[in-house]
Amino acid sequence: MDTLPLNKAFTLIEPGPVVLVATNDGRKDNVMTITWTIVLDFSASFAITTGPWNHSYAALRNTRECVLAIPTVDLIDTVVGIGTCSGEDTDKFGKFGLTRVAARHVRAPLIGECLANIECRVVDMIDAHSIIVLEGVAAWFDNSRKEKRTLHAVGDGTFIVDGRRLDRKAMMRSKLPSGI
Amino acid sequence: MDTLPLNKAFTLIEPGPVVLVATNDGRKDNVMTITWTIVLDFSASFAITTGPWNHSYAALRNTRECVLAIPTVDLIDTVVGIGTCSGEDTDKFGKFGLTRVAARHVRAPLIGECLANIECRVVDMIDAHSIIVLEGVAAWFDNSRKEKRTLHAVGDGTFIVDGRRLDRKAMMRSKLPSGI
Repeated sequence: MDTLPLNKAFTLIEPGPVVLVATNDGRKDNVMTITWTIVLDFSASFAITTGPWNHSYAALRNTRECVLAIPTVDLIDTVVGIGTCSGEDTDKFGKFGLTRVAARHVRAPLIGECLANIECRVVDMIDAHSIIVLEGVAAWFDNSRKEKRTLHAVGDGTFIVDGRRLDRKAMMRSKLPSGI
Repeated sequence: MDTLPLNKAFTLIEPGPVVLVATNDGRKDNVMTITWTIVLDFSASFAITTGPWNHSYAALRNTRECVLAIPTVDLIDTVVGIGTCSGEDTDKFGKFGLTRVAARHVRAPLIGECLANIECRVVDMIDAHSIIVLEGVAAWFDNSRKEKRTLHAVGDGTFIVDGRRLDRKAMMRSKLPSGI
């Protein structure tokens, strides 16, 4: 994993990929699959939708830390598997053979198999809407990885894989933050 | 435009496509490009990130209504054009030749060129995080449209086009809401 400047972390979430959320509750690691995410600003501020129905929620609430990890298409069955069992009765890192990589600022692990990881702190919880607001504190990107296509969950059990990339940088120059 | 059951509206936003937000401030229509969106629950609850820096924000705040429209890849230059000028000095529906279609519940228009439209009411504004919470009240889908590939903004001026679709319905059956 190579460091990614924090001001570029929003470009990992903005396209709307499926995300894995790694937590550590002080005793053990856990991970859940999340597709409901949003970027809140360019300085690495994000939110996710979750609540008590997810086992990871207690760790998020208590430790106020997590890692957002971005899996690629080759991990689809891992992603779906993680999303269809619970940390309450399953050691998901063991079951799915995930590689823990020590994070710099949080106790939750980076996931070695993922394309990118963002270490986050919980900065607000908006219970009325099941929104947890996160601030990225470090970001990592695996430049050595050949497969970079991410997954987009439709919500009906199907997933859209990244296709071709179109460049409109020239048209958008006036709207892009500096350094991006 | 054909009606889409409201309980399926979240499947339009969950994959993270670029969205157009149409508003009507009581005098004129306007539209902005938004890529920061999130699903909050299966009953057509969404949020977007926006604030006073967007001209559309005043209409959202004052009318508490909008339409979320989903454009496809053939509209990329329209999407970028809409996102790089302001309704403050531009009639965007005129400039980009967009077709207004009357909505059922809100004054903002549906966009005829888009793959899908969701009529929404503003149910909360979380100013501290620039989050506007929306409730979908009607949804529309153009089944006659051949091009269904949407766009995912990366945030650096490039866009990822929908690629192939992978089916994991059988694996996910236990997690899908009924009727989806």
